[in-house]
Amino acid sequence: MNTFGESIKLTIFGESHGEAIGMVLDGFPAGENIDIDEIKEQLARRAPGKSEMSTPRKEADEPVFLSGLFNGHSTGAPICAIIRNTDKRSEDYHPEKPRPGHADLTAQIKYKGCSDFRGGGPFSGRLTAAMVLAGAVCKQALSRRNISVDASIIRIGPVESSDPDFDFAMRKEILDARASGDSIGGAIECSASGVPAGLGGLMFGGMESRIAAALYAIPGVKGVEFGAGFEIAKMRGSQANDPIRLEDGRIYTETNNSGGINGGITNGMPLVVRCAFRPTPSIGREQKTVDLLKHENTSLRVVGRHDPCIVPRAVPVVESMIAFCLMDVICGA
Amino acid sequence: MNTFGESIKLTIFGESHGEAIGMVLDGFPAGENIDIDEIKEQLARRAPGKSEMSTPRKEADEPVFLSGLFNGHSTGAPICAIIRNTDKRSEDYHPEKPRPGHADLTAQIKYKGCSDFRGGGPFSGRLTAAMVLAGAVCKQALSRRNISVDASIIRIGPVESSDPDFDFAMRKEILDARASGDSIGGAIECSASGVPAGLGGLMFGGMESRIAAALYAIPGVKGVEFGAGFEIAKMRGSQANDPIRLEDGRIYTETNNSGGINGGITNGMPLVVRCAFRPTPSIGREQKTVDLLKHENTSLRVVGRHDPCIVPRAVPVVESMIAFCLMDVICGA
Amino acid sequence: MNTFGESIKLTIFGESHGEAIGMVLDGFPAGENIDIDEIKEQLARRAPGKSEMSTPRKEADEPVFLSGLFNGHSTGAPICAIIRNTDKRSEDYHPEKPRPGHADLTAQIKYKGCSDFRGGGPFSGRLTAAMVLAGAVCKQALSRRNISVDASIIRIGPVESSDPDFDFAMRKEILDARASGDSIGGAIECSASGVPAGLGGLMFGGMESRIAAALYAIPGVKGVEFGAGFEIAKMRGSQANDPIRLEDGRIYTETNNSGGINGGITNGMPLVVRCAFRPTPSIGREQKTVDLLKHENTSLRVVGRHDPCIVPRAVPVVESMIAFCLMDVICGA
Amino acid sequence: MNTFGESIKLTIFGESHGEAIGMVLDGFPAGENIDIDEIKEQLARRAPGKSEMSTPRKEADEPVFLSGLFNGHSTGAPICAIIRNTDKRSEDYHPEKPRPGHADLTAQIKYKGCSDFRGGGPFSGRLTAAMVLAGAVCKQALSRRNISVDASIIRIGPVESSDPDFDFAMRKEILDARASGDSIGGAIECSASGVPAGLGGLMFGGMESRIAAALYAIPGVKGVEFGAGFEIAKMRGSQANDPIRLEDGRIYTETNNSGGINGGITNGMPLVVRCAFRPTPSIGREQKTVDLLKHENTSLRVVGRHDPCIVPRAVPVVESMIAFCLMDVICGA
Repeated sequence: MNTFGESIKLTIFGESHGEAIGMVLDGFPAGENIDIDEIKEQLARRAPGKSEMSTPRKEADEPVFLSGLFNGHSTGAPICAIIRNTDKRSEDYHPEKPRPGHADLTAQIKYKGCSDFRGGGPFSGRLTAAMVLAGAVCKQALSRRNISVDASIIRIGPVESSDPDFDFAMRKEILDARASGDSIGGAIECSASGVPAGLGGLMFGGMESRIAAALYAIPGVKGVEFGAGFEIAKMRGSQANDPIRLEDGRIYTETNNSGGINGGITNGMPLVVRCAFRPTPSIGREQKTVDLLKHENTSLRVVGRHDPCIVPRAVPVVESMIAFCLMDVICGA
Repeated sequence: MNTFGESIKLTIFGESHGEAIGMVLDGFPAGENIDIDEIKEQLARRAPGKSEMSTPRKEADEPVFLSGLFNGHSTGAPICAIIRNTDKRSEDYHPEKPRPGHADLTAQIKYKGCSDFRGGGPFSGRLTAAMVLAGAVCKQALSRRNISVDASIIRIGPVESSDPDFDFAMRKEILDARASGDSIGGAIECSASGVPAGLGGLMFGGMESRIAAALYAIPGVKGVEFGAGFEIAKMRGSQANDPIRLEDGRIYTETNNSGGINGGITNGMPLVVRCAFRPTPSIGREQKTVDLLKHENTSLRVVGRHDPCIVPRAVPVVESMIAFCLMDVICGA
Repeated sequence: MNTFGESIKLTIFGESHGEAIGMVLDGFPAGENIDIDEIKEQLARRAPGKSEMSTPRKEADEPVFLSGLFNGHSTGAPICAIIRNTDKRSEDYHPEKPRPGHADLTAQIKYKGCSDFRGGGPFSGRLTAAMVLAGAVCKQALSRRNISVDASIIRIGPVESSDPDFDFAMRKEILDARASGDSIGGAIECSASGVPAGLGGLMFGGMESRIAAALYAIPGVKGVEFGAGFEIAKMRGSQANDPIRLEDGRIYTETNNSGGINGGITNGMPLVVRCAFRPTPSIGREQKTVDLLKHENTSLRVVGRHDPCIVPRAVPVVESMIAFCLMDVICGA
Repeated sequence: MNTFGESIKLTIFGESHGEAIGMVLDGFPAGENIDIDEIKEQLARRAPGKSEMSTPRKEADEPVFLSGLFNGHSTGAPICAIIRNTDKRSEDYHPEKPRPGHADLTAQIKYKGCSDFRGGGPFSGRLTAAMVLAGAVCKQALSRRNISVDASIIRIGPVESSDPDFDFAMRKEILDARASGDSIGGAIECSASGVPAGLGGLMFGGMESRIAAALYAIPGVKGVEFGAGFEIAKMRGSQANDPIRLEDGRIYTETNNSGGINGGITNGMPLVVRCAFRPTPSIGREQKTVDLLKHENTSLRVVGRHDPCIVPRAVPVVESMIAFCLMDVICGA
């Protein structure tokens, strides 16, 4: 199911080593100015090869808009944009030896051995570039509505953003992981400010349901929480409830344990969501796996270019999925 | 959006103090035997009034099946079942004073003052009885496919399931909260065993996206995580990756940090998910709020019958939503 | 698939001889006054037993609203309404002898013998009462927006509405059919006036796609056409194109061969659609069929109460489905 | 709404004079061999410029597959294919003078003047090439399941396929229309044989609802009927009902007035559907229209390259939409 959304349908397609990856945004409102350079900047935030902390795979990530734009603005027709896959190395892939933690094994079972296994195929983190394409379009429209969506890293392995000299410590943690042929997990927090109250809806149309479904589509996400999140399980109601106040004609809450959402509907406070990323499954260390052809236990050492930590590059991806969800509910309101 | 699912569509309707609550399951396979007594048992697990730990509101929760069953089995046509609301007290509701932490304020904004505010209306936990109705039907069909879905409480406030004498400590925590006119949060873990490998799909069709969207529809859920969840953010790849092994012709993983899901697709290991519940927002203590008619700050003390902790009653609700998601993907496979 | 619609989801459930039939309208806007008596009037237009032209089956068709209404208006939560099945005769049903022209055979194949075969089960025309329930709610909201939806019979067998003394001739045709143990087909035209220009959308979101899908859900419909319909196939462009004119600041077209729709989008002219109904398959005459148990050719004479012509009772049903489609696109605009 | 389908989602994008048109098929089963040459042959059937009967616009219609194929077969991931727009003439477009019968006016209203008006933009018949792309993929998979989908012209203006020397008469009718600066309508019949019984479903999931919605997405379709279609309105039940027979263990019907569908479900007989096409709205003759800038009545003579009759080129398009619908229900069965 590569299509998502209610008022706007986002479709994502492509594989890591196929011709191109891309997305279609159907239902995006007409008349929105779209700045391609700004979109390229968002893609650049996700692009690999920028530092020693990421994979040396180098992709130009040049977006090509095939439809839906005219004279610099959206037309109301579906916006399709693609990015060619240019840096496809002829690396050795061993589909018979599924990588632990990756979709290799489950993809082969589900797709009966027909999945494109090169570089993870459609399960590759490469497809998050298409998410950023869509998100960058949405962020421009949100920005005109005074809504900004900003994510940042709050954890890399044991290092937390509240720790002293977080930037240095985080960087060290990633380089240490890489040096030992390993990878490291992390977490991202995203806050959307300027979100009007009254967005979302009942039951499965609640903001948490929509956003969580979108975030869990990002490869590697294993946890999603809103506001106080799992910490709220430890609280009493008198602590957790956000006192409602009126000031200068504006209603707000003194705290934001609800993360800007009550009953699935935005309350006008910043929408706050966090998600946890697993360490990149592709590591250089030897790992136990099975040989699906020989039907025997074996081991595997993943070669090739891989990020020791996907979290830094995932920041604009998280923003993008949340931006899409916000634009979707705004168009349906 | 009260309809959810791909191959099976679940629609939930009703309000806390309306005529009835209910659900429609459309796309449920024909020929499944449905045992109504077993469904009543599931409803009884969620029912209030059973102990001093829950609201004294007493509902018979007698399900009435209106369609889709014939001679004791499903027919392939939509299954509609309802539960009458019998114990509707004429309590005083003050829609002009929204309860902190509740949907009162956001519902009024979204529905322009037209929402049914009595007892939380469609946002009430009462609607989780309709979720259990649907889940109980699905669980019977899953059981015939050797899949069981079992949830349990893993936290009540500061008390964890690993703590000594958890049952006693948890109970004490809840009664303490109630005694002080307060409420308490908690967390539930659910494990589904017997789930075949290969269920789920790419992107937004991944098991995590589907299940998280379903769980966040349960009132009060503020966090959802799979497998190692947020802990995985602290790990290295060599720890987090679940080694793949073959034994007696069966592939399994030595650990289950992925919670039975890789790349959104089940891997045959138990599907493990946890969710965090906020403390019931309705508490007897005085809370700050605003008067929407007088446009001034005021305070509120919620009277009426409320659970000091919704977590014990939420256990079958969590199972139900996961059972529905599993049945949905099985029917689409 | 008993759920339909984009911005509003309509779910229909029930069987001819089950407990009740009903519908859920999810996404219907809050704050719409709903007059239950007017809804009963719409149901009465469809109700059987009113004249010698219809089945003597007598149903009170008393709607019970279970949710979504509060103080006489819609709340934004799903509206569920049901109608109990009261007049269920213990007629003899022979599921082993499928009735020609009916869903008996195909339902058994699809639902593996588990379908509720009594009176056609979920395929029965009885379910159109649930369509009228939904349509009646929508018509009230449309009426407040100055949109009216009016259908009428344009053909009963060989008799056309342009024929002299159509009412008498049509009635005679139906009674003749009944007298000879037969049934008769017919056609209905529906016109929606006051429809604003600009509703609908590209491709599958076009008004024709939406309305045709809705009308073909009515049992017995075998043709749907818009504007000049099949006659347009005989025309030249110079005849078929509707000249665009401006008068008093208002754009209109001199003819309406497009039926108020261009490129799937309403143009402000009356939306005109026609549909053809097959004769009721259940007839008293002997018909060839097979015995599914004995695996042999046999014959069948349908006994029980059946309409010799469903077209008169289908008029409000056609209006209802079109009213729903209009309300759906209006809410999504 | 450019996305359609239940088990398989088809998304179509592009504009007549944009970069490219294309489609995404999401949910198409893995492991289907896809022959690109056969797809090109299907595209060639729709391609313009082949004879004096069609527009001299010459497009290579070279499909480029961007994703979803690997080693010649489908992978289970979304199949995206595009066709570049190569022959874009810098013709004069006058968006201020909407062409009668076309979407020009309604598109401007709906999309607030932001629609791409060049050559009809997203409303252009050019997008039917993307439908054929999708249909050609589906037809290959259907063929392996012994299902064939074949359409043919049954009417061009006054000339019917039952007329003597239909090919010559039809050709003459088209050339006559062109010679007089006019265009001509027509109708197509499509029959799908080999369709197994039991496909489709209740209500809005019925085959007629699905297929009609798909066919009405083709620009210019104004009527869709199944089996005896509108003629069935003239019949009695004893004529219209298709007698059910058993021969050599196979159930069939003696006639096929139901067009292979009862109660929305296939009965194993050929699925027969017809649709009516309006004459191309773009004609060389002078037509009345309005000037939207000057706010006055005016006239228009459409210049540029246009088909005098779109029906011949629409034959593979009709097949394609029906092939998609069949593949969609097969995957959901």
